[in-house]
Amino acid sequence: MKISGIEIIAFRYTSRVGRDAEGHAHPSEPHDAVQTLTRIATDEGADGYCFGGSREMARLANEILVGEDPWNRERIWQRLRQYQRLAKTALSDHNIGVLDMALWDLAGRVTGLPVYKLLGGYRDKVLAYASTMCGDDLPGGLDTPEAYADFAEMCQKQGYKAFKLHGWMPPYGPDPKRDVAACRAVRERVGPDMALMLDCYHDYSREEALYLGRELEKLNFTWFEEPMNEHSVSSYVWLTQQLDIAVVGPETAEGKMYTRAEWIVRGASDISRYDVAHGGITATMKAAHLCEAFGVRLEVHGGGPGNLQVLGAMGIPGGYYERGLLHPFLDYEEQTPWLKEVIDPLDSEGYVHISPKPGLGMEIDWDFIAANRIGE
Amino acid sequence: MKISGIEIIAFRYTSRVGRDAEGHAHPSEPHDAVQTLTRIATDEGADGYCFGGSREMARLANEILVGEDPWNRERIWQRLRQYQRLAKTALSDHNIGVLDMALWDLAGRVTGLPVYKLLGGYRDKVLAYASTMCGDDLPGGLDTPEAYADFAEMCQKQGYKAFKLHGWMPPYGPDPKRDVAACRAVRERVGPDMALMLDCYHDYSREEALYLGRELEKLNFTWFEEPMNEHSVSSYVWLTQQLDIAVVGPETAEGKMYTRAEWIVRGASDISRYDVAHGGITATMKAAHLCEAFGVRLEVHGGGPGNLQVLGAMGIPGGYYERGLLHPFLDYEEQTPWLKEVIDPLDSEGYVHISPKPGLGMEIDWDFIAANRIGE
Repeated sequence: MKISGIEIIAFRYTSRVGRDAEGHAHPSEPHDAVQTLTRIATDEGADGYCFGGSREMARLANEILVGEDPWNRERIWQRLRQYQRLAKTALSDHNIGVLDMALWDLAGRVTGLPVYKLLGGYRDKVLAYASTMCGDDLPGGLDTPEAYADFAEMCQKQGYKAFKLHGWMPPYGPDPKRDVAACRAVRERVGPDMALMLDCYHDYSREEALYLGRELEKLNFTWFEEPMNEHSVSSYVWLTQQLDIAVVGPETAEGKMYTRAEWIVRGASDISRYDVAHGGITATMKAAHLCEAFGVRLEVHGGGPGNLQVLGAMGIPGGYYERGLLHPFLDYEEQTPWLKEVIDPLDSEGYVHISPKPGLGMEIDWDFIAANRIGE
Repeated sequence: MKISGIEIIAFRYTSRVGRDAEGHAHPSEPHDAVQTLTRIATDEGADGYCFGGSREMARLANEILVGEDPWNRERIWQRLRQYQRLAKTALSDHNIGVLDMALWDLAGRVTGLPVYKLLGGYRDKVLAYASTMCGDDLPGGLDTPEAYADFAEMCQKQGYKAFKLHGWMPPYGPDPKRDVAACRAVRERVGPDMALMLDCYHDYSREEALYLGRELEKLNFTWFEEPMNEHSVSSYVWLTQQLDIAVVGPETAEGKMYTRAEWIVRGASDISRYDVAHGGITATMKAAHLCEAFGVRLEVHGGGPGNLQVLGAMGIPGGYYERGLLHPFLDYEEQTPWLKEVIDPLDSEGYVHISPKPGLGMEIDWDFIAANRIGE
């Protein structure tokens, strides 16, 4: 089998999510938005799909990958990685992830198996945490500690056993004391048994981060995420030495599993972090295997079908799937109209079940895409 | 699909290889020997096979694995690993490897794909090194430096681009000066272009190891393998700091990829080492991914179909497949009469090609096995 082409299918949909100046998501008025779907086609008619990807990525991927055996995922991954050095935009880690996931999807479709079973299955379901959007100034949204507490209680009633706050970030923050007030309000509302995490402003000082960590320890939080610039690894070494609460990271740092290795060796976090947006399922499994060799947990970052498949195949904790981002004003399950069914349904016990369907397990709504497709 | 049973098929064959008091292989008079084949059967009729395994292993595996989905390789691997703590003999790393490889073989047979393509292929062929048996006292065998040189020249004419000496070990050695004499005789005979390696007595002192390493540097050897007890990690840190030649290890040390992680962090070798006898393809890929995250080469130890499949899927060097063990008195390709074709055919350029056949790529000679089968 040979790859015959890589195609970008672009289509419009109505989004209710906008971005602030930093790129964080918030509820917004309904507006037109564009989603892309990357298709890898073969000479034998088999296809693989992953949402995301750009036309520039597809142009380069066509140059590099046409004629290659789609089963040579490792060779393809390494070639794309080498091209990245001078083609960082078209072949971002995110785009390599899209291409890698489309190849895994193809493998699953050809064999009739979900990706996590091809990798070697470990579990069929995973506890989810409700992951909020960042704080805002929307009355009754995520504008006050009380609003976070209301929302956490709503999530708890839905079945969630864990809840993660994203704190206030520019232009709505930051303010460590307000973050703590929100965390305290949530803990008081949900009681002692719900697992709670904080992902706060990512550019606090060491002293602010230490203050926050100590307060989270008092509130019996489960972990503490990215309170400082991740390029200052020494700051994370320092913070991890001070705190008892588990520091999780790196998340946004460049450098794939190589960077995770350095953080582990330096003791820059207690729990490592990776996701398929940093080079796909192939890269994330490499990071998981790295972590396993050091007895270090890997909490997978972000949601979606690729991360779910990895969680199904990882033989170590990570204990959680990140479900979201959520906001009291939004229906999360309505945000992917290009799928016939939500990829990460939550059961009443707070688990997300991994789809037993082939590949990434997506039921793509081709009618929706055809009706909304846009050209070059 | 569910695992319905694990069976040991035992059969006799005529071996021309004997073992010395330390367990090393040498040519011997033809004698009866027993080989085993592990079969994992499923309720849907699909099977997976791997040579090796014991009845005690099968008894335990039947207790633990019957009813499990054979696609849950990671879950199975972790359960077997946990059982190892108190069942070290039946569930040795070697036996876990056999069960894991039988499951990979099954996955390949079901999908019609070789294992390395399921993992994600990187290469279809790999350079081999001719790997000798240990030195002996057989006239014209491997009894003198000159005999090693004769044999290296013969291998070079066969197409091998690399040659590894196993030196003299008890009861035929050790003697560092004699090892060096053999290495020198080989280098002088084959010329400057053939890659050469030494795997010598595994219990030399630090001083003897340093002497050997310095002599190998002068002879432009490619790597230096296990000259000291691997439980003394500090000795390897010391040796690796002294030498320019690449120190390869650990090879026989217990502890799977966890131990490789510690050697990497401590700088106890330049090149890491792993093989499927330490927990199978699943474990070896974990070690390969660990090494990749640190920019460390992994030279896969030993031959056979499982190691070949791993080499096909590894996106990093290891540059070589270990073909052997070889001896001037033995025909290597006649040593597996239970296979219809040799698993690692050497081409005239010195490459071994990975079988494109499903699973581990073995063509099992069922007639031979039936004719020689023995009962409990």
